[in-house]
Amino acid sequence: MLQLLIGNKNYSSWSLRPWLALHGLGIAFEEVPLRFDGFGMDAQFKQRLRRFTPSGKVPVLVLDGVAVWDSLAIAETLAEAFPHAGVWPGAPAERAQARGLCADIHSGFTALRQHCPMNVGARLPAVGARVWQEQADLREDVHHLLERCASLLQDSSGPMLFGAFGMADAYLAPVWLRLQTYALPCAMPASVQAYVQRVLALPALQQWCADAAAENDFVPFLEPYRSGPTLPE
Amino acid sequence: MLQLLIGNKNYSSWSLRPWLALHGLGIAFEEVPLRFDGFGMDAQFKQRLRRFTPSGKVPVLVLDGVAVWDSLAIAETLAEAFPHAGVWPGAPAERAQARGLCADIHSGFTALRQHCPMNVGARLPAVGARVWQEQADLREDVHHLLERCASLLQDSSGPMLFGAFGMADAYLAPVWLRLQTYALPCAMPASVQAYVQRVLALPALQQWCADAAAENDFVPFLEPYRSGPTLPE
Repeated sequence: MLQLLIGNKNYSSWSLRPWLALHGLGIAFEEVPLRFDGFGMDAQFKQRLRRFTPSGKVPVLVLDGVAVWDSLAIAETLAEAFPHAGVWPGAPAERAQARGLCADIHSGFTALRQHCPMNVGARLPAVGARVWQEQADLREDVHHLLERCASLLQDSSGPMLFGAFGMADAYLAPVWLRLQTYALPCAMPASVQAYVQRVLALPALQQWCADAAAENDFVPFLEPYRSGPTLPE
Repeated sequence: MLQLLIGNKNYSSWSLRPWLALHGLGIAFEEVPLRFDGFGMDAQFKQRLRRFTPSGKVPVLVLDGVAVWDSLAIAETLAEAFPHAGVWPGAPAERAQARGLCADIHSGFTALRQHCPMNVGARLPAVGARVWQEQADLREDVHHLLERCASLLQDSSGPMLFGAFGMADAYLAPVWLRLQTYALPCAMPASVQAYVQRVLALPALQQWCADAAAENDFVPFLEPYRSGPTLPE
């Protein structure tokens, strides 16, 4: 049995990626939630992770007793263990594109991550309007991502980025949740808009969002823009 | 025939990683150097890369006509194409550790990257002493890396991190060049010190450093600490 250690569903974009991929690809697993109580070395969260990973971060996959950490390492491990599940596209050229996109997200788009941290349940359109106005690198990140999606969708043989659902779609999903939370006033090509709606309608993603709301766990150190869960902006 | 597109050897740590891995694993390839003339959209560098990757970054591997970008995607593509070359360790637990380490380097250790950018030929010990003193996150990055190496070497069955040379060793190599350039006064465990010497003595890495010197190409926008190649600090 696979286990996936994840953080708070409201906040942990890196946890969402393999979680959504596993669900979307039909790979059964047990989910092990670890609450974000702090990122200092004395936090319970860090203590519980210690025996799984020296990185001290979620997600962690446990497969046949081996702990695999980092979302990208998990992706490759799943592709190895379930070669017919469709983690990556089958054609080499598409596989390269999918891996490249995920790797770029893994190491980049830091302005989007910094200014619009994932916060599934929050609705912060005024914050979004302000940071969109102020941060040129944020606008550049979003434009670049939308452009890449539009280009991939043009060549896609199916409803998702590379035909059927795969890791690349899961990797991008937190981006769409951020756009929702911050209502960023970006010009989205119609093809991307339709794609985003298809992703947001995935039963697994709906489930994640419902679970995030049910956590009812306001984590102050992950809330740069709110001082409480029920307060207006 | 494989081709690897790389940037200036003096500066491009991401290019060094797959280049060193290919050499160290005995996989023949042709190297295609692209000079860093700028990172703006009008730079020759960006123009030449455009038809290979939407990321606009090196390294890029071209394998059977398919362009694969990002060092981590290249690693996985090589592991697929050359399953017996030893890109990753054979045992699942070690493979997970190697992938996790590379992924952590791919997305993290930003203080080390920011304050000590790779600059193979430069010797900047005064800069190193200053940033080491001033930047707590730099010290933390280096300590954490050294700790992880020490732990891996303790369990290793060979001279490298996971027995024989592999991608993880190549991924870390730029770190050792940075320590050399900036002479960071970190306390290095004896086992790590010996390992670093073995890596620095690899003929391929020596070749890279000699090639870097032969470039004789001072790139101002990659030089936060020097105003000319021959100037003292």
